[in-house]
Amino acid sequence: MRILGIDPGLAIVGWGIVDYQNTRFRTAAYGSLQTPAHTRTEERLKLIYDGMRELIETYKPDALAVEELFFNTNITTGIRVAEARGIILLSAEQAGIPIFEYTPLQVKQAVVGYGRAEKRQVIAMVTKLLGLPKPPKPDDTADALAIAICHAHSGASRIAAYYNQ
Amino acid sequence: MRILGIDPGLAIVGWGIVDYQNTRFRTAAYGSLQTPAHTRTEERLKLIYDGMRELIETYKPDALAVEELFFNTNITTGIRVAEARGIILLSAEQAGIPIFEYTPLQVKQAVVGYGRAEKRQVIAMVTKLLGLPKPPKPDDTADALAIAICHAHSGASRIAAYYNQ
Repeated sequence: MRILGIDPGLAIVGWGIVDYQNTRFRTAAYGSLQTPAHTRTEERLKLIYDGMRELIETYKPDALAVEELFFNTNITTGIRVAEARGIILLSAEQAGIPIFEYTPLQVKQAVVGYGRAEKRQVIAMVTKLLGLPKPPKPDDTADALAIAICHAHSGASRIAAYYNQ
Repeated sequence: MRILGIDPGLAIVGWGIVDYQNTRFRTAAYGSLQTPAHTRTEERLKLIYDGMRELIETYKPDALAVEELFFNTNITTGIRVAEARGIILLSAEQAGIPIFEYTPLQVKQAVVGYGRAEKRQVIAMVTKLLGLPKPPKPDDTADALAIAICHAHSGASRIAAYYNQ
């Protein structure tokens, strides 16, 4: 199973492709889509859309895993992140790729085994689990890989649930 | 100038096409895109995207006018509205249509002349200004027409600002 993990944002969309087979991980690719500041929002959204389409076409994932949004910090930023997230969901839907959403708590639980883990613990575990030479940068990329791992761990049952819904 | 006014939402996207020439309004068409409840969010977002593309292709607007989002009510609903709004901005950007955003206060000010006007006053003025046989339904459609009127009133200067930015 090939999973595309996404950490949504307007300025930075973290992404990571994780192959999960027989309880083993392999990382095909990871990185971030970045959109220039001082650019109209709609232009940045289009860059994200085009970038997502290209990622999906290149890596042909079987599933998209994305974090659920919570507005605990800046609400204006939150609106922009949600707009970008809508674009991300659309790009997967258009390609017929099932989408799975996880809370930050679920992601931390799956990766570190502890729902209130700190960000650096998550990054360290992602690096270790995927056997990466060094921690992925920016943090958004590490977060995207963490979400993909989370889906791999809970994937089988969720996919069954998806097709039975 | 042909303006597409949009009131964003996940369940209902109100829309209205207003032609504005020599300080006169003409309403070409108005209605709402509605997406079924109990459907996956990404499927609803795709329905909105397809609907927007069709509206733009059919009516070929010169500008898209849309309300700015504020989260003063339900924050979970707000996230979904923002996701839908991202899709709406994307569809206009892909078609090369400039986007203009207005606050609810600006819309009420432009339509009723009073920023704290009630919804029924806005609907009544929209009906009157556009010479409609009866108030448009649902309210989202009336709101979309109000946003288009707001842009018509402030349009010339905003368009100049857009191309000079």
